[in-house]
Amino acid sequence: MASGKTVLATGAFDLLHPGHVRFLEESKKTGGPRARLIVVVARDSTVKRRKGRKPIMPEEQRREIVAALKPVDRAILGHQEVDFLGILQRVKPDIVCIGHDQNDIKKAVAKIIKHEQLPIRVVQIPQFGPAGLNSSTSLKTRVLRSRSRTLPSWSKTARKHA
Amino acid sequence: MASGKTVLATGAFDLLHPGHVRFLEESKKTGGPRARLIVVVARDSTVKRRKGRKPIMPEEQRREIVAALKPVDRAILGHQEVDFLGILQRVKPDIVCIGHDQNDIKKAVAKIIKHEQLPIRVVQIPQFGPAGLNSSTSLKTRVLRSRSRTLPSWSKTARKHA
Repeated sequence: MASGKTVLATGAFDLLHPGHVRFLEESKKTGGPRARLIVVVARDSTVKRRKGRKPIMPEEQRREIVAALKPVDRAILGHQEVDFLGILQRVKPDIVCIGHDQNDIKKAVAKIIKHEQLPIRVVQIPQFGPAGLNSSTSLKTRVLRSRSRTLPSWSKTARKHA
Repeated sequence: MASGKTVLATGAFDLLHPGHVRFLEESKKTGGPRARLIVVVARDSTVKRRKGRKPIMPEEQRREIVAALKPVDRAILGHQEVDFLGILQRVKPDIVCIGHDQNDIKKAVAKIIKHEQLPIRVVQIPQFGPAGLNSSTSLKTRVLRSRSRTLPSWSKTARKHA
C-alpha cells in the first residue's frame, strides 16, 4: 500500500483560534487518505521581521501547541533566516497549503517551485466563516478592550461559590 | 478486553497555552491504557460568574479548540448553571482530574463524591514548570504590554520581503 502524501503548512500560530485549527484540518485533507501534515511554525525573529512585532507567545510554546493538534503529524520551527527552499528540500512535501492571508508566502513558494522545477502542488485554503475572532489580531483587540471591564482580582462581589 | 477508564477534566481554556496542553496530557495518563478523556469547557456565563469577566474567546470556539487537541476524546460545554453533580452523572468518570489552580473545584467535587458516595477518584495535576507564560492572565498581560511596542500596520520600514 502506497504511503500517503506529505502536506506542508506554515504560520505563526500566535494565540490559537479556530481558524488555525480549520486551516490545518483542511490542509491535511488535501493529501487524501494517510496524508502526513508537517507544520513549520515561524520563528520569533521571522514574525518580528514580517509583522514588525514579536509574537505574544515564544516560538517553542507555539510549536508545542501546534504539535498537540489532531491533524498535525509533526510541528517544526522554521529556519532563523526565512528559507522556503531549505524547508521544501527538508520536508519534501507533495503539497504546500497556503492560508487565505498568506499571499506573500504563496508567491514566494510558487516562484521557488517554478525555478527549481519541483513536483509540488500549491493549494490555497479559503477562509473559514466570517473573519470575526478568527484572527490573532482580533483576539488581541478583545484583550485590550476587556481591560477596562475587568474587575480587580480582590473583588468578591462578582464571585459566587460554585 | 476491558474498555479504558473515563477521565474528566474541566477548565475555561481561554487563550490556549502549553500549560493547558500538559494538563490534558497528564489527565489522560491517569486513566492508563485506552483511557478516554472528556473535557468540560466552562460556559461564558460560568467564567464571568467565577472570574468577574467574560472570556476573550466565546465558549463554542474554546470548545472547538480543546476538541482538536490530541489527548481529548470529547469536549463538551458545561451547564449554564454550574452543576458538578449533573456533570458527574452525565459523564460517569472513573477519575476527575483537577488543575493546580482549581482548588475550589477540587473541594466542590470532593464534597459531592463523599455525599453521593460515588466511586470516583480525584487526582490533582501539578503545575508544569515555572508559571511564566503558562497562564492566560500572563498572556493577556503580554498583549497589553505589546501594545505600546506595536508598529502601525502601514509601516513598511520594519518589513522585509521574505
